[in-house]
Amino acid sequence: MDLDATDSGRTRVRRPDTLAAEEPLEIRVGPAGPARRRPLTVTMRTPGADLDLAIGFLLTEGLIRSADDVSTAQLCAGTETPNTYNVVDVTLAPGVPEPATEMTRHFHTTSACGVCGKTSIDAVRTRSLFHVADDPLAVPAALLAELPQRLRAGQRGFERTGGSHAAGLFTADGELVVLREDVGRHNAVDKVIGWAVRERRLPLAGHMLLVSGRASFELTQKAWMAGVPLLAAVSAPSTLAVDLAAEAGLTLVGFLRGRTMNVYTGAHRVTG
Amino acid sequence: MDLDATDSGRTRVRRPDTLAAEEPLEIRVGPAGPARRRPLTVTMRTPGADLDLAIGFLLTEGLIRSADDVSTAQLCAGTETPNTYNVVDVTLAPGVPEPATEMTRHFHTTSACGVCGKTSIDAVRTRSLFHVADDPLAVPAALLAELPQRLRAGQRGFERTGGSHAAGLFTADGELVVLREDVGRHNAVDKVIGWAVRERRLPLAGHMLLVSGRASFELTQKAWMAGVPLLAAVSAPSTLAVDLAAEAGLTLVGFLRGRTMNVYTGAHRVTG
Repeated sequence: MDLDATDSGRTRVRRPDTLAAEEPLEIRVGPAGPARRRPLTVTMRTPGADLDLAIGFLLTEGLIRSADDVSTAQLCAGTETPNTYNVVDVTLAPGVPEPATEMTRHFHTTSACGVCGKTSIDAVRTRSLFHVADDPLAVPAALLAELPQRLRAGQRGFERTGGSHAAGLFTADGELVVLREDVGRHNAVDKVIGWAVRERRLPLAGHMLLVSGRASFELTQKAWMAGVPLLAAVSAPSTLAVDLAAEAGLTLVGFLRGRTMNVYTGAHRVTG
Repeated sequence: MDLDATDSGRTRVRRPDTLAAEEPLEIRVGPAGPARRRPLTVTMRTPGADLDLAIGFLLTEGLIRSADDVSTAQLCAGTETPNTYNVVDVTLAPGVPEPATEMTRHFHTTSACGVCGKTSIDAVRTRSLFHVADDPLAVPAALLAELPQRLRAGQRGFERTGGSHAAGLFTADGELVVLREDVGRHNAVDKVIGWAVRERRLPLAGHMLLVSGRASFELTQKAWMAGVPLLAAVSAPSTLAVDLAAEAGLTLVGFLRGRTMNVYTGAHRVTG
């Protein structure tokens, strides 16, 4: 935005810089009818594909099961000038229960000190609709190794700003189906999955999900909730991500860089 | 954990891998006296420095102003065997107001569609205790360029797992004061700031905060809340991070790599 100060030869150059946009998005949810929608969460996100983001978030948190559970979803019309378009208003279909008031992010806490990795995994298992363990996907390691390059080729935003995370959904043949970028990596994945929900493509059996950064517990949860049998990350997974992937029977690939990768779980799906 | 499948020469090697640990931490807060502490948030974090994380979170969210606002903070003793040690129980000092029930993360939402970047910036300005705009910190660009290397030198966890974000607090002379790592970059910063709160070093005037990844709105908020006049990131900032830093009078440095950097705001503190 302002100033480029380099130390090589002590040169300073003042020039404009293109940055990844970040704005808050409030997701409001309510039942069919005249009742007021209540704020569910606020996420800092890159504007764009906001309906996908909201729908993907609701699905991966277990609050909806398909597009049929949503009656309407709209960017709030608002009364301000100019309209900020930073609210998505979701009306649930009749019979779909409202989120509990005490829902703190996605998390089920139990009594006393019973919050641990196992609690988290149990909570996801309870909500997961799709069985990925038996998914017959098989993909050559050589094809997997090409995916990061295909993701980058589609990632024009990253070329521009260097500040976005990307998530891409691929077919078993390595064809890029959809790509989304966001300042938040969870948001990028929610945008991909929300797109698939609205296109009625769930479960995403036989597909692969690639993320440009690390694989956390929450990204693994999102992959499972969407029925994706293989999650690949350019960087490292966490211990709890590996534990959850093992529980789900999901293939988790990390450090997918150059011609090498680490396969942490479900290695039978990666062929030589 | 499991399998290393590389495509160069089609070799597969099975070997153990060291990963960054990730476990949920629940932060509970309540008033002095026998009243029950209520769950405030759950964050997925790397275990360790959990009291720092909780205290840093409470300060950067504006819920406490100093260590004096906390009566006790402890890892919950629990009743399970084995104890998961994944709950921090904070008792506020007498007279310190409890967090509002409807607090959703750090966010102040307004009526109708009035949620936007400006709303977020206004909310931080309202809560900020420290004035960083007049901080006389001045640091040579050549010294700034050395900080990432000094951070990495202290970052043994990263060498081991490749999966951690790091945050480091430096003096104006470039001396590393404290370094914390976490699977979540917000947590790494909260651990650094929480340490400083407990050491009664706030405001962190004349100090610099370096983060290993990108500079988001929320990291800039945390720097301002702790009174740090300079935030440097190895990767890109977002638009809203730049807007907030400009509002605060905080120096924001991005792409601090090799011998170059971009200075987005407060460039007067970076000397040639």
